Amino acid sequence: MSNGQSTTRDERFAHGLEVLRKVDGEAGQRVVDSLADISPELGHQVVAWAFGEIYDRPGLAPRDRQLVTLGMLTALGGCEAQLDVHVNAALNVGLTPEEITEALLHSAVYCGMPKALNATFAAKKVFAERGLLPVGQQPAPSATSA
Amino acid sequence: MSNGQSTTRDERFAHGLEVLRKVDGEAGQRVVDSLADISPELGHQVVAWAFGEIYDRPGLAPRDRQLVTLGMLTALGGCEAQLDVHVNAALNVGLTPEEITEALLHSAVYCGMPKALNATFAAKKVFAERGLLPVGQQPAPSATSA
Amino acid sequence: MSNGQSTTRDERFAHGLEVLRKVDGEAGQRVVDSLADISPELGHQVVAWAFGEIYDRPGLAPRDRQLVTLGMLTALGGCEAQLDVHVNAALNVGLTPEEITEALLHSAVYCGMPKALNATFAAKKVFAERGLLPVGQQPAPSATSA
Amino acid sequence: MSNGQSTTRDERFAHGLEVLRKVDGEAGQRVVDSLADISPELGHQVVAWAFGEIYDRPGLAPRDRQLVTLGMLTALGGCEAQLDVHVNAALNVGLTPEEITEALLHSAVYCGMPKALNATFAAKKVFAERGLLPVGQQPAPSATSA
Amino acid sequence: MSNGQSTTRDERFAHGLEVLRKVDGEAGQRVVDSLADISPELGHQVVAWAFGEIYDRPGLAPRDRQLVTLGMLTALGGCEAQLDVHVNAALNVGLTPEEITEALLHSAVYCGMPKALNATFAAKKVFAERGLLPVGQQPAPSATSA
Amino acid sequence: MSNGQSTTRDERFAHGLEVLRKVDGEAGQRVVDSLADISPELGHQVVAWAFGEIYDRPGLAPRDRQLVTLGMLTALGGCEAQLDVHVNAALNVGLTPEEITEALLHSAVYCGMPKALNATFAAKKVFAERGLLPVGQQPAPSATSA
Repeated sequence: MSNGQSTTRDERFAHGLEVLRKVDGEAGQRVVDSLADISPELGHQVVAWAFGEIYDRPGLAPRDRQLVTLGMLTALGGCEAQLDVHVNAALNVGLTPEEITEALLHSAVYCGMPKALNATFAAKKVFAERGLLPVGQQPAPSATSA
Repeated sequence: MSNGQSTTRDERFAHGLEVLRKVDGEAGQRVVDSLADISPELGHQVVAWAFGEIYDRPGLAPRDRQLVTLGMLTALGGCEAQLDVHVNAALNVGLTPEEITEALLHSAVYCGMPKALNATFAAKKVFAERGLLPVGQQPAPSATSA
Repeated sequence: MSNGQSTTRDERFAHGLEVLRKVDGEAGQRVVDSLADISPELGHQVVAWAFGEIYDRPGLAPRDRQLVTLGMLTALGGCEAQLDVHVNAALNVGLTPEEITEALLHSAVYCGMPKALNATFAAKKVFAERGLLPVGQQPAPSATSA
Repeated sequence: MSNGQSTTRDERFAHGLEVLRKVDGEAGQRVVDSLADISPELGHQVVAWAFGEIYDRPGLAPRDRQLVTLGMLTALGGCEAQLDVHVNAALNVGLTPEEITEALLHSAVYCGMPKALNATFAAKKVFAERGLLPVGQQPAPSATSA
Repeated sequence: MSNGQSTTRDERFAHGLEVLRKVDGEAGQRVVDSLADISPELGHQVVAWAFGEIYDRPGLAPRDRQLVTLGMLTALGGCEAQLDVHVNAALNVGLTPEEITEALLHSAVYCGMPKALNATFAAKKVFAERGLLPVGQQPAPSATSA
Repeated sequence: MSNGQSTTRDERFAHGLEVLRKVDGEAGQRVVDSLADISPELGHQVVAWAFGEIYDRPGLAPRDRQLVTLGMLTALGGCEAQLDVHVNAALNVGLTPEEITEALLHSAVYCGMPKALNATFAAKKVFAERGLLPVGQQPAPSATSA
């Protein structure tokens, strides 16, 4: 948005929601919904600020943002719920299971084995849910693709 | 390396040193040198394991490894010395100052403002040393390029 | 206590227990009980030192201590069990659900969104148990108050 | 601001700057200035978002926000620069040196001695600059107050 | 191994597996197995590097390595799964339940009460599984020892 | 002390000071002195509680306490000042430079390379001050030993 463009708070939320949906799919919406009765303002800020203002900027590709995010969540520790959302997001924006797994192997160098293991098991859960295990094997082609 | 290839410890160190030099240039060598009188084994492991075994794997591009690394170092906190090395490394493997700055802005969402600020000031120091400030402006073309 | 006052270890424990009960109610006692077969000394120190010596000091109001504590537990991460105890404690010493929720929103600025979300969901669990959801609505007055 | 109010990005920055000045005085402005050549957007977000959107909310008193912030910065570790700004801010919004010192003593229970010590020494530096040492003694009344 | 000795990757894995089994027993093998379908390389590095290269070095006794490890896992936070493995490992290499409990009490000084409590409860789970509760009581002598 | 023994606050401080001196020598006293004008109570608690109550317990040898402490300080990060004190303390209670260096190498497995490097450089500073570099070489025997 240009500096001069005037927007309402609701418009900024609506804009963030579009960005959120592209990155996180349904998972992002579920986080916002679960905040409705305790801190709707935190839900608003996740959407309008984190996604509407930061994720939306053109200076770094969505795929690159997820690489940085996976590194941060692994290093912070105790963010298994967020790793679930962002391993899904990483797949949504084009990272392969092999690249995600390799990034988490790489994290062992900087964060140590325990955090690398915790993050890898969080990714395993997501890959299992999406039928992407074992990593490194191609999913069988569907019948209709023949 | 194939699983069957036999190597000595010294060969693995020499291999890691090649990878280290491509990524970190002189800065990596200086870290290894500064360990010589206190923990040469830690220097060996940084080179032979971190670079020779992990960095060298083909599954993630060097540029992508630096994005993950910048995220981790920002999140860990207290790693200004390592950020110095890796902001340099990020530039060496093709990330632009704009992309690095954007990755550190992105880190504010996940790590909070203090760690984003600390990492951004660590990057500013490197950019200043390499004549890359202000970020977002092209360096003036040298006279000989005219 | 004046510097000159002589006390036994058991008296210091008894004094801490009084302070603990005012702040944490039953939850504090349960933590101490669960330590009885593994580390009664840790239970003693939580009571006699943390509560008897530190919490009991007059220089900071109990309500203010809980604000600082909520900030620390959010920032540390991985302290959901302690957040459960201290969100309850915060309510016990006079912080409102609205103030607690606002403090956790504020934490997003310093700790980032993942830790702010983790702490907010820990608070949501406590508020639900005490019938305080949705935050921002008054509990219905009881019939006997009419 | 009401949800319906339309504002430009520049207006949101200007609003945040007013809030920042009340809390942090000159120190906040210096942080923003030092970001101008590396990440003006991070400076914008500190001002327009952190201060304009979060700090400005009425649900938690400025004094209470600083108590939470001191707790978070102490727990995060490696945030001595931010502690410098926020110990000043805490004094600006009405916390006494005694309350700040007590909050940092309290942090020993939750963060351990090293982080409590690091934060206390950061506060000592600020108190010394403002003529507030030793803590617990009243500054001498100025001649003009007689 | 001498610097001149030539080994294959598989030989280094096999060597690490021997060391791992002495320290962690079955628990280490289970971690490696659970990585087989997501990141066999991370499993390889835990075994061949962490155990084959680092744990195997003679400069620090296995018992001392576990003391350092318990301290690190407690301080990192969010490493309950790894504490489970390493409280078991600590018992395997000769630390007594009393020493482990005392080390975790000691951690309260440096990491604060929440992390000391989290680690102590992780140890309690292991001690309960191995019939070692309450700590400080001798297990009843077996009939055959009479 | 038996549970029934009655002590004053000053006696508990005096007792802690004795323990502190055995472990930390002058360095511990300097920390307490530097707190005198900002938080004498934090100084009291470091001495009377951390050393008088925890360090003094017989269940874990002083040497073992330092191994745990080195692990924790390395993992916490940002505790270079405390590592300075405790690398000295580790030498004071009988750990060799080789064992300390090996413990910090071991920390690379659990905390990652950056924190292992930071701690190793903190140790290097202490070893240099005490004439113990390079590690692994014996100090020249004094003339009187011939």
